[in-house]
Amino acid sequence: MLKIVVDAMGGDNAPAEIVKGAIQALGERKDFSVVLTGDKEAIGAELGKLSYDQSRVEVVHCTEVITNDDIPTSAVRSKKDSSLVVGMNLLKTDPDVGGFVSAGSTGAVLTGGIMLVGRIKGVMRPALCPALPNSRGEQTLLCDCGANAECKPAYLAQFGIMASAYAKAAFGVKNPRVGLLTNGTEEHKGDTLHQEAHQLMKQLGCINFVGNIEGRDIMYGDVDVAVADGFSGNVALKSMEGCGKLVSTILSKELKASIWSKIGCLFLLKRLKNIKNSLDYSRFGGSVFLGLKKVVVKSHGSSKARSISCSVVQAVDAYRNNLIGTIEEMLSVTDLSGAKDA
Amino acid sequence: MLKIVVDAMGGDNAPAEIVKGAIQALGERKDFSVVLTGDKEAIGAELGKLSYDQSRVEVVHCTEVITNDDIPTSAVRSKKDSSLVVGMNLLKTDPDVGGFVSAGSTGAVLTGGIMLVGRIKGVMRPALCPALPNSRGEQTLLCDCGANAECKPAYLAQFGIMASAYAKAAFGVKNPRVGLLTNGTEEHKGDTLHQEAHQLMKQLGCINFVGNIEGRDIMYGDVDVAVADGFSGNVALKSMEGCGKLVSTILSKELKASIWSKIGCLFLLKRLKNIKNSLDYSRFGGSVFLGLKKVVVKSHGSSKARSISCSVVQAVDAYRNNLIGTIEEMLSVTDLSGAKDA
Repeated sequence: MLKIVVDAMGGDNAPAEIVKGAIQALGERKDFSVVLTGDKEAIGAELGKLSYDQSRVEVVHCTEVITNDDIPTSAVRSKKDSSLVVGMNLLKTDPDVGGFVSAGSTGAVLTGGIMLVGRIKGVMRPALCPALPNSRGEQTLLCDCGANAECKPAYLAQFGIMASAYAKAAFGVKNPRVGLLTNGTEEHKGDTLHQEAHQLMKQLGCINFVGNIEGRDIMYGDVDVAVADGFSGNVALKSMEGCGKLVSTILSKELKASIWSKIGCLFLLKRLKNIKNSLDYSRFGGSVFLGLKKVVVKSHGSSKARSISCSVVQAVDAYRNNLIGTIEEMLSVTDLSGAKDA
Repeated sequence: MLKIVVDAMGGDNAPAEIVKGAIQALGERKDFSVVLTGDKEAIGAELGKLSYDQSRVEVVHCTEVITNDDIPTSAVRSKKDSSLVVGMNLLKTDPDVGGFVSAGSTGAVLTGGIMLVGRIKGVMRPALCPALPNSRGEQTLLCDCGANAECKPAYLAQFGIMASAYAKAAFGVKNPRVGLLTNGTEEHKGDTLHQEAHQLMKQLGCINFVGNIEGRDIMYGDVDVAVADGFSGNVALKSMEGCGKLVSTILSKELKASIWSKIGCLFLLKRLKNIKNSLDYSRFGGSVFLGLKKVVVKSHGSSKARSISCSVVQAVDAYRNNLIGTIEEMLSVTDLSGAKDA
């Protein structure tokens, strides 16, 4: 049976919300089991509060935890009995394990992914790829959103290929439209990196490159994939997050401001719920770390049970939809070795 | 009397909304007049629909218009009788003219600003600086948001100085907190450019540098000034714009979805208006082009009368609050000549 490993100790709300989320996911998809890595006692205490099919849950005890204060490279090397390292080693060695989910330190997930799980042959730089809601009611994939602060044109081209494979495999998009995130839509826009990446991506036969896009186009939904260097992709992602938070702060303040507004809200209960759901991007799960030999999902550090559940489901689906195979296939028909600085 | 020149032909809604906005601004501030540059007849037709004090409005006829399809540098050189070039020349030569407002081509405003108005002595690169609403109900200045796609560390340091001067002069912030927009808050985060800029800004005595910030911090409001290279600043600005648009699309759809939701809205009329106002950043005017010898405000291309009015008021206030002098003063006490690549 397919197994998904969940790092029960990673994230602000570990282990309670992580364990709860992993168990919730069992109800969403059949025929898979979860392996929880972490402190046996702490996990057991959380499991004790829940009802679930015991044949679908396994706990692997570890004594260490990697935190945000650890230096990723040395932590992955030295904390060999941490929930993250043990989990990733299971992912690497156990053929039944199809995916790994962690809400822990992003740096450690990235480092561990590359050092322990390893890259698909030909991948220059793995990249983080979340799915974001857009105004068409669909999703836009943003790749890279933070794994690679410093990029070369060929990396960006490869992000476009890997995220296209993800859009096809996970979301069933037939011919994903790929845009390059810059500071304007005209072809000459951007710095040297993005100008060169544009020319390179234009020549790729294996992706449907539609040209440069601006930050606002990510959420407008005119593309399925927004390719970004990890620096500005991260800036885009977090700027949208900040804007969402501002809106929700203002909404919440105003809707509770008077007795009249509270009465108004009673008429709007269903609508407010719809609004919340439309904007809640945790329904897409976490960011997939594209380019690794196996499925790794990085869930938000502040993830609660629902986000974790979505991330586990995302890992199950990515495995079953052959995400890794699709990336390998698309990469195999592309030769970027001639690209400058590739 | 102080004069503000308004490019009546620039922007998607020119000349109607531009003329209307300029006239509205006359009601907001006393003791200044507007000079409208553009086609005399078209402007006259719009003025004819409005009632205003004729002694405070002047029209300077020009026969040409610079559009978004023009190449900025050649357009500024060749279209000498365009509303933008004529306006900027007035700004440069007429000592009574304190500011210039345009909703026209950003590229042409930037090129014209540098070529015709000129830089303050010591300014390496002028930068675009909008004010954005934050969750404290105040404003965060984002500098640069698009004038310089390719930057050097010393440029970023200077953006911090100029935007601090702007926060002091225009918003009365005593000791503006300056953050550097990167992909994480830790000191080592970012690419080489931002790592070097961080070290440089840390050493500047004239600004209150608080360290690296992330995209979400722009709207959280923990800083008064967010310093960015023009590429990622533009990505941040437009990503927030896209997010705002998505939210407003969803809100509008849901609130009109049923008879019950429409009834609910009746109870919420005042609240919905407050929400709209809180998020409407056009109340701050446009982006000031910091580093020029005179006040230049770039209003959004899609500006309607209200935005233009706010931009004109912004220009009046920036002039009266001695924005240019404050920038000159802060620059005069800073020596960036030793910075790498300065």
